[in-house]
Amino acid sequence: MRRSGHAFGINRRGLISSAVLLSTPALLRITSTLAQDASNLLPSWSDGPARQAIIDFVRATSDQASPHFVPPEERIATFDQDGTLWVEHPVYTQVVYCFERVPAVVAQKPELKDREPFKTVLSGDHEAMAKLSLHELEEILLATLTGMSVEVFDTEAKKWIETAKHPRWKRLYTDLVYQPMLEVMQYLRANGYRTYIVTGGGQDFVRMYSQQVYGIPPEQVVGTAGGTKYGYDKDGRPFLTKEPKLLLNDNDAGKPEGIHLEIGRRPRAAFGNSTGDRQMLEYTGAGDGARLMMLVLHDDAQREYQYGPARGLPDTKVGTFTQQLYDEAMNDGWIVISMKNDWKRIFAFE
Amino acid sequence: MRRSGHAFGINRRGLISSAVLLSTPALLRITSTLAQDASNLLPSWSDGPARQAIIDFVRATSDQASPHFVPPEERIATFDQDGTLWVEHPVYTQVVYCFERVPAVVAQKPELKDREPFKTVLSGDHEAMAKLSLHELEEILLATLTGMSVEVFDTEAKKWIETAKHPRWKRLYTDLVYQPMLEVMQYLRANGYRTYIVTGGGQDFVRMYSQQVYGIPPEQVVGTAGGTKYGYDKDGRPFLTKEPKLLLNDNDAGKPEGIHLEIGRRPRAAFGNSTGDRQMLEYTGAGDGARLMMLVLHDDAQREYQYGPARGLPDTKVGTFTQQLYDEAMNDGWIVISMKNDWKRIFAFE
Repeated sequence: MRRSGHAFGINRRGLISSAVLLSTPALLRITSTLAQDASNLLPSWSDGPARQAIIDFVRATSDQASPHFVPPEERIATFDQDGTLWVEHPVYTQVVYCFERVPAVVAQKPELKDREPFKTVLSGDHEAMAKLSLHELEEILLATLTGMSVEVFDTEAKKWIETAKHPRWKRLYTDLVYQPMLEVMQYLRANGYRTYIVTGGGQDFVRMYSQQVYGIPPEQVVGTAGGTKYGYDKDGRPFLTKEPKLLLNDNDAGKPEGIHLEIGRRPRAAFGNSTGDRQMLEYTGAGDGARLMMLVLHDDAQREYQYGPARGLPDTKVGTFTQQLYDEAMNDGWIVISMKNDWKRIFAFE
Repeated sequence: MRRSGHAFGINRRGLISSAVLLSTPALLRITSTLAQDASNLLPSWSDGPARQAIIDFVRATSDQASPHFVPPEERIATFDQDGTLWVEHPVYTQVVYCFERVPAVVAQKPELKDREPFKTVLSGDHEAMAKLSLHELEEILLATLTGMSVEVFDTEAKKWIETAKHPRWKRLYTDLVYQPMLEVMQYLRANGYRTYIVTGGGQDFVRMYSQQVYGIPPEQVVGTAGGTKYGYDKDGRPFLTKEPKLLLNDNDAGKPEGIHLEIGRRPRAAFGNSTGDRQMLEYTGAGDGARLMMLVLHDDAQREYQYGPARGLPDTKVGTFTQQLYDEAMNDGWIVISMKNDWKRIFAFE
C-alpha cells in the first residue's frame, strides 16, 4: 500500500474541487463510484499483495501529479506467453502444432516417412515423442514452420488454432488463457499502457491469434523469429517465404535483445513465469523510476498444474521456476503471483 | 479525381442531415469549413495528380461508407528516410556521423591511427574518402556503430544529430526534412494511419530523433539492425552491447522482410525514392484493396538536387532512381512525385 496513499490523495483533491459545482445527490453518486472503483478492478484476483502491487503501480505511473508518473509514450508492458498468459503443460501448444503438421509435411515429402524423427511422430507414440532430443525437435520445427510462404503458414496455423483442443480440458487452447492476466492487460491498456507479448514461441504463430485472444495486435508481438526471403510467383506477384534461418531466439537473454530490436524502449512492467523470463525482468527493473516485475507461480495442481522447484517441487522440462529465480525475485523486489492464492478463478469458462 | 467524388458524396449527405437541426448562419459556417477543408490540406503541395492521389486515397480508405474503406488497425503507411523524408546528398547523414566518430574511436584504439581506412578518414581528404571501397566503408561503420552499450551509442548519436550541419545549407540535418512529406505523414495520422519509417539507415540511429523530427516513435522505426548482446556491468546491472552482427539489411528485399519481422502487416501506403524501395512498393501493391505507392523524384537542382536517370540524368552513388524503376512505376500505377513541380516549398525554413 506504499504508493496508493498518494494516488488516492489526488483523487480526493479532484473530488473536493468538483464538489463545489455539484449538488449533494450528484456528489454522493460520484463518491460511491470512486469507492467501487478499486473493488471492481481485477475481479478475478483475490485481495493481496500481488493485486495491490498492480493497482499501486498503475495508479502511481498514470497519475500526472504522482512523483512516479510515466509519460504515456513510455508506458510499455511486456508479457511472456506460455505459462504466463496460457497453459504450457503438458507440451507447449506450438510444439503440438508442429507434431500435428508432420503428416501433411510427410505427404508432400514421402522420403521423410521412414526417417527419424518423423517416423516417431507419425507413430503417435507420445512416450517416444517426449524422449526426442532437442536436435530432433528442432528438425521437426524447421520442417513444419519453414519452407512455405507466409500466407500459407498463416492460413494453416489459423485453421489449426481455431479447432485444436487441449487433452485435459477438451477445450480450445485459446480458451485456456488465464482470466486474471486478461484483466491485468485490460487494466493496463485502460490506463494508457501498450501491452506486448514477448514470447519464446514463434512470432508468426502467436500473431495469428493475439488480437482475438489477448487484444494484442500483431505488431505488438515479439517472438522467436526466422528470416523470410522475398521472391515472385509465376505471375510476378511478390511473396515472402519462411526461411530456416534463426534471426531471434526470443528466450532468456534473447528477450531483452528482441525488445530492443522490435520495440526500442525498455518496458515499465514485465510479466513472466520461468527462467526464460529472468533477463526480461532484470532489464525492465534496471530502468529508472517506477517498475513492476511479476512472476506467475504454478502452484495449483487442482485447478491447473503444480510445478516449479521454488517450493521444493520437482523440476520439469518446460517453464522452470527455479529456486535461484525465486531468490532473485525476493532480492530484487519482483512479485510472485501464486495461482492458488492470488487468483479467484483461472479460466473465463470456470 | 476518380475516388474523390464518392468521398465528397458522403460529406454532402452528412451535411444535409445536419442542416435539419441548424439555423442558416450555422449551416453557412459549416459549408465554408468543408469547402476550405480540401484546399487547406497538404499546403506545401501544388495542385496536381500527386497531391490529389494522396487525398483521394486517404478519403477512400478512411470513409466507412467507401467501398475502399480500410479498418483503422490495418492503416499502416511506411516511409523510406534518405531521399524520401530528408536530403541524402552528397553523403547519407549517418555515414557522415560514422566518419566524424572515427577520431573518437581512434583515440580509444590508437593502433587504428595508421591503418586504412581509418587513416584516410583522419586525413579529412573528402576526395579520398569518397573513393573508399564498400568493404572499407563497412569497416568504418562497424568500428563506429558497434562495440559500445546501447546507452552510450544513443547518447553520442543524439548529441551529434543536435549539432551537426549540412555543408550546403549550413543547417542542422534535421532541418533538411521535406516539409511536404511531414504534411503527408500528419495528414495520414489525422486519418487513423500509423506512420512507420522503413530505412536502409541504422534503426538505432534513426530512433534517436524520429519522434522529434517526424513525430514517429522509436517502436515505429524499422531499419538496418545489428544484434545486441545482453550482459552485466561490474555492479551486476544488465545492459545491451551493440554487436558487429547484421540481423537485417533493410534495403531492397530487406524492406518487406523487415516489415514482416517488425510490423507483421502489409502496408497500405508506401513512399520511397530509389531502387532500394522497389520491393517495399511492390509488396505494398500486391495486397488487396486500395493501396498507394509513391516515389519522390529529385529533379530540382536549384532548390535541392537533381539526380535520377529517369529523365536522362547521370546515375549517382546513392539513392538511384533508374529508368527501370520509372518504367515499373508507370506500369504498376505508382505515382512519381516531382519535387520541382509538385512541391511549392521543400523545407520548413524556406
